[in-house]
Amino acid sequence: MERARIAIVGATGYTGSELVRLLVSHPHVELIAITSESRAGEPFSDVHPALRGIEDRRLIPLAELGRLAPDLVFLALPHRVSMGFVRDHGTEPYRIIDLSGDFRLRERSVYERWYETTHVAPDRLADAVFGLPELYRDRIRDARLVANPGCYPTGAILALAPLLREGLIRPRGIVADSKSGVTGAGAKAKETTHFPELFGNFKAYGLLAHRHTPEIEQALTAAAGGGVEVLFTPHLLPIDRGILTTAYAEPARELDHDMLRKAYEHAYAGEPFVRVLAAPPEVKHVRGSNYCDVYATYDPRTNRVLAISAIDNLVKGAAGQAVQNMNLMFAWPETAGLEQGPLNP
Amino acid sequence: MERARIAIVGATGYTGSELVRLLVSHPHVELIAITSESRAGEPFSDVHPALRGIEDRRLIPLAELGRLAPDLVFLALPHRVSMGFVRDHGTEPYRIIDLSGDFRLRERSVYERWYETTHVAPDRLADAVFGLPELYRDRIRDARLVANPGCYPTGAILALAPLLREGLIRPRGIVADSKSGVTGAGAKAKETTHFPELFGNFKAYGLLAHRHTPEIEQALTAAAGGGVEVLFTPHLLPIDRGILTTAYAEPARELDHDMLRKAYEHAYAGEPFVRVLAAPPEVKHVRGSNYCDVYATYDPRTNRVLAISAIDNLVKGAAGQAVQNMNLMFAWPETAGLEQGPLNP
Amino acid sequence: MERARIAIVGATGYTGSELVRLLVSHPHVELIAITSESRAGEPFSDVHPALRGIEDRRLIPLAELGRLAPDLVFLALPHRVSMGFVRDHGTEPYRIIDLSGDFRLRERSVYERWYETTHVAPDRLADAVFGLPELYRDRIRDARLVANPGCYPTGAILALAPLLREGLIRPRGIVADSKSGVTGAGAKAKETTHFPELFGNFKAYGLLAHRHTPEIEQALTAAAGGGVEVLFTPHLLPIDRGILTTAYAEPARELDHDMLRKAYEHAYAGEPFVRVLAAPPEVKHVRGSNYCDVYATYDPRTNRVLAISAIDNLVKGAAGQAVQNMNLMFAWPETAGLEQGPLNP
Amino acid sequence: MERARIAIVGATGYTGSELVRLLVSHPHVELIAITSESRAGEPFSDVHPALRGIEDRRLIPLAELGRLAPDLVFLALPHRVSMGFVRDHGTEPYRIIDLSGDFRLRERSVYERWYETTHVAPDRLADAVFGLPELYRDRIRDARLVANPGCYPTGAILALAPLLREGLIRPRGIVADSKSGVTGAGAKAKETTHFPELFGNFKAYGLLAHRHTPEIEQALTAAAGGGVEVLFTPHLLPIDRGILTTAYAEPARELDHDMLRKAYEHAYAGEPFVRVLAAPPEVKHVRGSNYCDVYATYDPRTNRVLAISAIDNLVKGAAGQAVQNMNLMFAWPETAGLEQGPLNP
Repeated sequence: MERARIAIVGATGYTGSELVRLLVSHPHVELIAITSESRAGEPFSDVHPALRGIEDRRLIPLAELGRLAPDLVFLALPHRVSMGFVRDHGTEPYRIIDLSGDFRLRERSVYERWYETTHVAPDRLADAVFGLPELYRDRIRDARLVANPGCYPTGAILALAPLLREGLIRPRGIVADSKSGVTGAGAKAKETTHFPELFGNFKAYGLLAHRHTPEIEQALTAAAGGGVEVLFTPHLLPIDRGILTTAYAEPARELDHDMLRKAYEHAYAGEPFVRVLAAPPEVKHVRGSNYCDVYATYDPRTNRVLAISAIDNLVKGAAGQAVQNMNLMFAWPETAGLEQGPLNP
Repeated sequence: MERARIAIVGATGYTGSELVRLLVSHPHVELIAITSESRAGEPFSDVHPALRGIEDRRLIPLAELGRLAPDLVFLALPHRVSMGFVRDHGTEPYRIIDLSGDFRLRERSVYERWYETTHVAPDRLADAVFGLPELYRDRIRDARLVANPGCYPTGAILALAPLLREGLIRPRGIVADSKSGVTGAGAKAKETTHFPELFGNFKAYGLLAHRHTPEIEQALTAAAGGGVEVLFTPHLLPIDRGILTTAYAEPARELDHDMLRKAYEHAYAGEPFVRVLAAPPEVKHVRGSNYCDVYATYDPRTNRVLAISAIDNLVKGAAGQAVQNMNLMFAWPETAGLEQGPLNP
Repeated sequence: MERARIAIVGATGYTGSELVRLLVSHPHVELIAITSESRAGEPFSDVHPALRGIEDRRLIPLAELGRLAPDLVFLALPHRVSMGFVRDHGTEPYRIIDLSGDFRLRERSVYERWYETTHVAPDRLADAVFGLPELYRDRIRDARLVANPGCYPTGAILALAPLLREGLIRPRGIVADSKSGVTGAGAKAKETTHFPELFGNFKAYGLLAHRHTPEIEQALTAAAGGGVEVLFTPHLLPIDRGILTTAYAEPARELDHDMLRKAYEHAYAGEPFVRVLAAPPEVKHVRGSNYCDVYATYDPRTNRVLAISAIDNLVKGAAGQAVQNMNLMFAWPETAGLEQGPLNP
Repeated sequence: MERARIAIVGATGYTGSELVRLLVSHPHVELIAITSESRAGEPFSDVHPALRGIEDRRLIPLAELGRLAPDLVFLALPHRVSMGFVRDHGTEPYRIIDLSGDFRLRERSVYERWYETTHVAPDRLADAVFGLPELYRDRIRDARLVANPGCYPTGAILALAPLLREGLIRPRGIVADSKSGVTGAGAKAKETTHFPELFGNFKAYGLLAHRHTPEIEQALTAAAGGGVEVLFTPHLLPIDRGILTTAYAEPARELDHDMLRKAYEHAYAGEPFVRVLAAPPEVKHVRGSNYCDVYATYDPRTNRVLAISAIDNLVKGAAGQAVQNMNLMFAWPETAGLEQGPLNP
């Protein structure tokens, strides 16, 4: 079988390196180019030395991409930069999977409020498909532009959507208390990610104002068929990879533990990357893999539903899910290139 | 001034070593004995080598304690063992601060249900004082038997009690999502605390069933003047020390951020060990100290109150609070022996 | 192509789970059985929940292995237990790769002195092949019994053998200062591997007496063509995976940095799993992969050679190297099943 | 007793915050000012929020220091900046303890070679006293300018000086393989100290060229009475605090384990901050304390001496040692303000 010609735009971040890690052993992919403006001309492995010997090609400037005739381009660019790319190159023949937040929110006004900027390619918001295969598999297959979900939203939505869809929990008063490894904050060194500040530490951040909030609510509202409100609180875990989301909701009707489990099993039967567990998930059990582990239970004492999910934020929360979307777009086996089991311990 | 004669019963756990760390430089204390049945005869610093040169005395068996005429005894014993000590020695002239859970719950039936055992000294439940100075300072001064609070309850109660007392939040539907360092699980090696299992990991545990739940509810019910229900979810952080509790509640009336802050400032004015912060607390900012840092805010979008606290589980959550209680019982300055600032970074 | 029938004896340790992680996606392997005496009858994924959905087969007792006619058996057993297996089953038709230390030392007396036990299958010491492909590739191809190298020896030998072989460093006075992640201590919880004891900690252990010492010296003596002596000092790193070895030696003749680099490049030209770096190796750059990264330099000021290597102790230091050996024994591509890049960050 | 008037110049680094942590509870000190050019006017606790409530005074610009008439000033400034301060203010009546590297090396040319800069106050190199109390206690008492030792040198020198002084080891061919927590790299965020780069990682750095090399050699040469050469290799531990140095040397005469221990016991009898251990030191056993733990042994097999030390790089390796020096300079008890035991676990 001929391999598809794939390019990655943006190479210096963790999303870029994780995409390369997954794509170099993908059976149907020919990685034809990786672009970088700031490091163009350097070998990719100078930027990411762990991948020396695996991917040593030189980075090219974006301007050289078009003539290489890619079939699909992954955008591993910062928020706000991606939409500029789509505005400028959106009519070229290749398909696009954007890993930024620029095309995830359907309403321009919602985007502009939470991202505090003007959207420069608002006409593409309507046809961009939210790339969460477990919810939108069919639409992804035919998409020209996939908006790959955020890391927190992936975990929160997969934990809550089945319960909302089946009317087991109320759409208001939902709490998503999430804890993420530090790679979620990106590859750029900042004072807040200086090693001694985080080692042995733990804290909440971005209270009430994190941009993943509307993304979670948008997908869950679609699942529930009505207005879902989520109080989302991110925390910074002193580890590199992994997100655990502990969500709390009021039951919408009389229920018990088994009904919650059945809702998950029904929603995720046949899903290659969601594991419905009989015990609370652990982030290290998904490390390096594309799994999302989920578990839910009911507390009759306080009449609350508790739903927990675990993902690797760089895999199912970013690059792995992007590869899963690509597999769907090319009608390849959905697990191609993603068979790696979790690295545990 | 003459020093009080203080003994520690139980030396092999982390509570015991932390008490020693604090007491050896306490200006009003003469540490007269440390007991251990399993390690009697060995130097204390053979059990806790970090304290070599600081506390090298030999451990004595409990049987030798009485003749030493202590003024106060700290019980650093496991749950279920402490109540046996109180049953057998509870009429001796010394006062007792028990760091186990055996005398924290006022209702025998509640204790027996959550601890799944028969209480062997139920007659002492009534006069045992819950040793949380910020709530029960006056009763602690005169107590014969102080039940030192659990680590999770200390953080959760200090975050929520002022809001309940002032009628700012509803007593039902409260969620306390807590994350603790591993020393909270004790000094004994277990499969679940084997280093490779926890390094880089994060998970919830003890769902719906953790014994600190009734302790939290008991103190908050007293603060609220009515039945408080809390869904408490503990998680295991891959660090040694520190608990962060993120609590969620419904407002009981119209409110805003400032009202929450004022409730804290009012409750904790003059408190030497509670810091009301203008930003979310971080566990490393209290490491090794007796501080509890608190912060609360209100989300008008979802109409929920968010309250966060941070403590060092071995200090304010155990040994430091025990020393604070002792200071009150002897009418010493409340901060004596506890002036150490946080070890940060 | 028909797949080879492979079994794993011993399932509860980290070596066992890591073998499974690698073998389930190996293109030429059919994993036919995993044995365990203590957990027989249970699904493998109950013992290693991270691999749920990947390997759920039930563990079988060893007694059932023979009738399954494996082509090759991996022994993931403790030291001392492996040699009993070989004594009892060594004449069966399948080939064996033993991951314990029982067949690594050619001299029975050396084994018995360092392992403080009697060897129960001493007649097999002569034909067991030390499974370090970079040194013994040809002998491995035809071996019936491969003694897979220890984790520390793999890193130390690959750093030093080329320099000894080319007569660049002296065989006496070599120091190997090694630092290992905690998985090297095994999956069994011990007091010394209790999370709070190691978190934020670092120490040397096993001074002068570690069993990997004679293994390192044996291979290096063979490389040097004469008696090599190494002072090997292991340390415990507060991480899960990875070994860094910093080795020091006296030059045997006048040399410079380039001569050291050339010795590596000459020795490792064409090696798929050794990367000769231009900068000091980092353990996270090999995490989860079968790479050994090496670097050497010369200090003219003190006239000393410095050689550094990094491996993942569970991959190149154990299971990955075992798979590499299996690939050689079946004449498959040496990298089959081992293409995974490092999990970084 | 009247308190001495103490100031700290430079507030934004870890040395500054650690000095404050120690000084605020020092019985003989009145902290009169903390200066900062970049953050002047802000409360100290805005820069170091962990110390809120402990030290909230406003930072002042250096220009305001003189009129406050300090008795002693700690310089917590970067290398190269300190010597400018001494040049400009060195004749003022207060004594100075400089925590930078600017006055540690007695030879101007050595300084200029290793620090690659011109020394701007070379006339003060002769009278600056190297502030290692265990070696230079008497000279420190009367010093006007103390050069507080580097973190690595403190640990390496205390491990090796007694062995050299007693002629037990040879002055050439010494290796100091050191491993440091990340606070040693300073408070400023850099790409190399970005949390995800270091978490789970370990590496050597600064090979052959680290500036602490001549500092180690200078002190050891003085102890040995002749030219000592040390190959010093620093490594970065993924923890916040602590340095372990593992040193290797050739014996200078026939010896055994006991002779090494006796050399330590002789050298450190009565030393309040050096603990001679019977087992290898661990960095967590000194965390937060001013201890240096030492241990040495002899390997008859390879005829090598192994010496190990552990310190907290921010305490005995910086601020704690500075306070110890101040205590000597004012003839206070040497342990004043330094009685805190290690924070373990």
